[in-house]
Amino acid sequence: MIHEETICAVSSAPGVGGVALIRVSGTDAFTICDKIFRAIREGKSVSTQKPYTLSYGSIMKNSEAIDDVLVAVFQNPNSFTGEDTVEITCHGSLYIQQQILQLLIENGCRSALPGEFTQRAFMNGKMDLSQAEAVADLIASTSAATHRLAMNQMRGGFSTELEKLRSRMLDFVSLVELELDFSEEDVEFADRSQLRVLANEIEGIIRNLADSFSVGNAIKNGVPVAIIGETNAGKSTLLNLLLNEEKAIVSDIHGTTRDVIEDTINIGGVTFRFIDTAGIRETTDVIESLGIERTFRKLEQASVVLWMIDATSDKKLIMALSEKVLPMTDEKHLVVIFNKADLISEADKLALNALFPTLTPLFISAKNRVNTDTLHQKLIEAAQIPSVGQNDIIVTNLRHYEALVKALAAIERVHGGLDTHISGDFLSQDIRECMHYLGEITGHISTDDILGSIFSKFCIGK
Amino acid sequence: MIHEETICAVSSAPGVGGVALIRVSGTDAFTICDKIFRAIREGKSVSTQKPYTLSYGSIMKNSEAIDDVLVAVFQNPNSFTGEDTVEITCHGSLYIQQQILQLLIENGCRSALPGEFTQRAFMNGKMDLSQAEAVADLIASTSAATHRLAMNQMRGGFSTELEKLRSRMLDFVSLVELELDFSEEDVEFADRSQLRVLANEIEGIIRNLADSFSVGNAIKNGVPVAIIGETNAGKSTLLNLLLNEEKAIVSDIHGTTRDVIEDTINIGGVTFRFIDTAGIRETTDVIESLGIERTFRKLEQASVVLWMIDATSDKKLIMALSEKVLPMTDEKHLVVIFNKADLISEADKLALNALFPTLTPLFISAKNRVNTDTLHQKLIEAAQIPSVGQNDIIVTNLRHYEALVKALAAIERVHGGLDTHISGDFLSQDIRECMHYLGEITGHISTDDILGSIFSKFCIGK
Repeated sequence: MIHEETICAVSSAPGVGGVALIRVSGTDAFTICDKIFRAIREGKSVSTQKPYTLSYGSIMKNSEAIDDVLVAVFQNPNSFTGEDTVEITCHGSLYIQQQILQLLIENGCRSALPGEFTQRAFMNGKMDLSQAEAVADLIASTSAATHRLAMNQMRGGFSTELEKLRSRMLDFVSLVELELDFSEEDVEFADRSQLRVLANEIEGIIRNLADSFSVGNAIKNGVPVAIIGETNAGKSTLLNLLLNEEKAIVSDIHGTTRDVIEDTINIGGVTFRFIDTAGIRETTDVIESLGIERTFRKLEQASVVLWMIDATSDKKLIMALSEKVLPMTDEKHLVVIFNKADLISEADKLALNALFPTLTPLFISAKNRVNTDTLHQKLIEAAQIPSVGQNDIIVTNLRHYEALVKALAAIERVHGGLDTHISGDFLSQDIRECMHYLGEITGHISTDDILGSIFSKFCIGK
Repeated sequence: MIHEETICAVSSAPGVGGVALIRVSGTDAFTICDKIFRAIREGKSVSTQKPYTLSYGSIMKNSEAIDDVLVAVFQNPNSFTGEDTVEITCHGSLYIQQQILQLLIENGCRSALPGEFTQRAFMNGKMDLSQAEAVADLIASTSAATHRLAMNQMRGGFSTELEKLRSRMLDFVSLVELELDFSEEDVEFADRSQLRVLANEIEGIIRNLADSFSVGNAIKNGVPVAIIGETNAGKSTLLNLLLNEEKAIVSDIHGTTRDVIEDTINIGGVTFRFIDTAGIRETTDVIESLGIERTFRKLEQASVVLWMIDATSDKKLIMALSEKVLPMTDEKHLVVIFNKADLISEADKLALNALFPTLTPLFISAKNRVNTDTLHQKLIEAAQIPSVGQNDIIVTNLRHYEALVKALAAIERVHGGLDTHISGDFLSQDIRECMHYLGEITGHISTDDILGSIFSKFCIGK
């Protein structure tokens, strides 16, 4: 399906740069660009330019050159959108970007909506819906892990997996439905024991995919970490240390801008999110108020608990506190840190170590940055995020997860139905429903509402 | 001259976008990109890719795809820098941009310095120095006029003019210097009356160019405007109105970010700069303190004076004030505005008009936005910026202006020398000096210091 309207937008990052890239896509992309582009070589035009080549020339407005540009031509279906596409690389001033867009619009283009290029790629069969969503995820990726997951999804790893499931279910449901045509003859084209094996297998695969969302979500949105400990234990010093290190690293990269979410850091490719840290910073004494329900909930939300203890404080007090903290947290996810460790003796350290026989507490000085590197490794261990392989399929998208949960319920009904020998038409209905939900993920089944809510979250120009 | 080192940088605007453009330039551009790019079509490589074509494929890091990209190839000397160049269009996440840069650097590239691509274009004879400077001006352009001047300069209008002058002087100085070889024979190869005509003409051209700087500077840096008037006259309301209109227009353009210079507005392609408006806003009563020297200086700096009068105030007071203000300002550049004009009668308006028989005061209501549009036209008239034609050569660069002033002094000495019949060697020296300064503009004569100070002001990636 080729769209009627030709759309245009700046696809490179907004703002002033050395160059900017303006994308034009649609039936009239070539003829519109012909009206505003004058190639440096006489007689050349965008319409006659060979696909996948570049041409140098000027953007003209009333016989005045607005800019000298490079024009790249892509012919349908061999373009990102699947439509005729022109990409104009111009000088990166806002004035030029705006002038060229205006000229394109005056000559018949329309400003692209957010994500409209990708939406067209989907509509024209260049990618399925989960791949289109991965394009946005890829652009938003800030860590190795989120990038890898988005990249795999964009390249169709997830789609292929779902397609395989759907196609196997389709084969089977066809047989079940064939029986319905011969219902008076009481035949069984679809072998029920084979169907049971298939349902089992599919249920397992869907369950694994749905389960992977907890990991995928932690990777995408960050591993929630709670820092607890008395106020004077040095929690904020530690947090600021972690955040500032990150800021220093990040600001090394040209043009990096940090999101407003300040309390997120990236360690070894894993994003950690410090939950409700404002509260942690403000609460004068979190340990003493451990009885308060709010703190309990905070610990429940956290995947990692950093318990910060002032190494110089009374051992009896520490013992008393540990009786409260330990039952509330899973040791695997608990990191015990003795701060101000430079102020105590080696003998004291041994004694403190002995208080936590099953753990290996960390001795640091947040203020003097002693041993703080080790904390990174501890955090990663406690997060227990499995390392993501290049081809691993991990669900990161809430929409996909919700569809998988519904698909799982449907396939479970198939399973149950087989146990109770329900009739083929009910079976068929449940298999179809399972297929429906999987189809929602890939976009085989989609509504304008779903598409609208997906693509409106994209940036303009993509 | 082809550089040894291969450089790389993100050339599109910094930040996250739909796509980003990474530029690689230098002797090893192709071989380095071959190491990290795997074309989708088997057997294709960057080195064997035809110039001015695009190739689709993946950026590979240890056999893992970092991104799917388009690679454009340009072969020396047919590239922006004049060197072998590869442009990689990747997805616009910061992570991907950073990863690809890192890969390029690991494989032998170096991060480009600010303006280094343009500097190489200059070093490789793709453009002269004033054209290179125009690239930066073009990118920084925010109005039609600055854009047009930069565009003309980038395309070589100014350079051609200077080259013509230099070449004519060279012809003549050669003849003068030939005489020196035959000095004992007292011959005159160079006709002195012809030289006088030439010197006259060149002096005129250089003077015109130098004079154009006042216009060029106003266009580039904004026409300085002073708003004077009593505090309750509505100066800040007017200023905020003008600035907010501008903001509203600017923010319509996708991705526009305003500079920190808040009090600059663009009207009909002309930039107006409100000088020391903070002072104007703070001063409780500018008119009463007109005797203060600081205000005098402010009016001297201004090319346009907006005098804002409360239309409801006493006519005698207005008369008294006008006796102070009018002698200090050139009527051509003075705009008299009666504010709160909706509160007075038509008869009052006639009476107020009569107070300024040689001017046509404006009657507005800044608060209710009555007649404020007319102000735009008035400002443009008062600025008296000549409209800039497509091929007009107007000097906008302080460095060029300073060189022109020195060249002018030298050619004036030639003139004087001809009058006093000085010897050929002195004449030759002055002509050479004039040529030297013109050569500084185009970069025929340049030092590392000059180049350093010019290109360090560029953005990275250009």
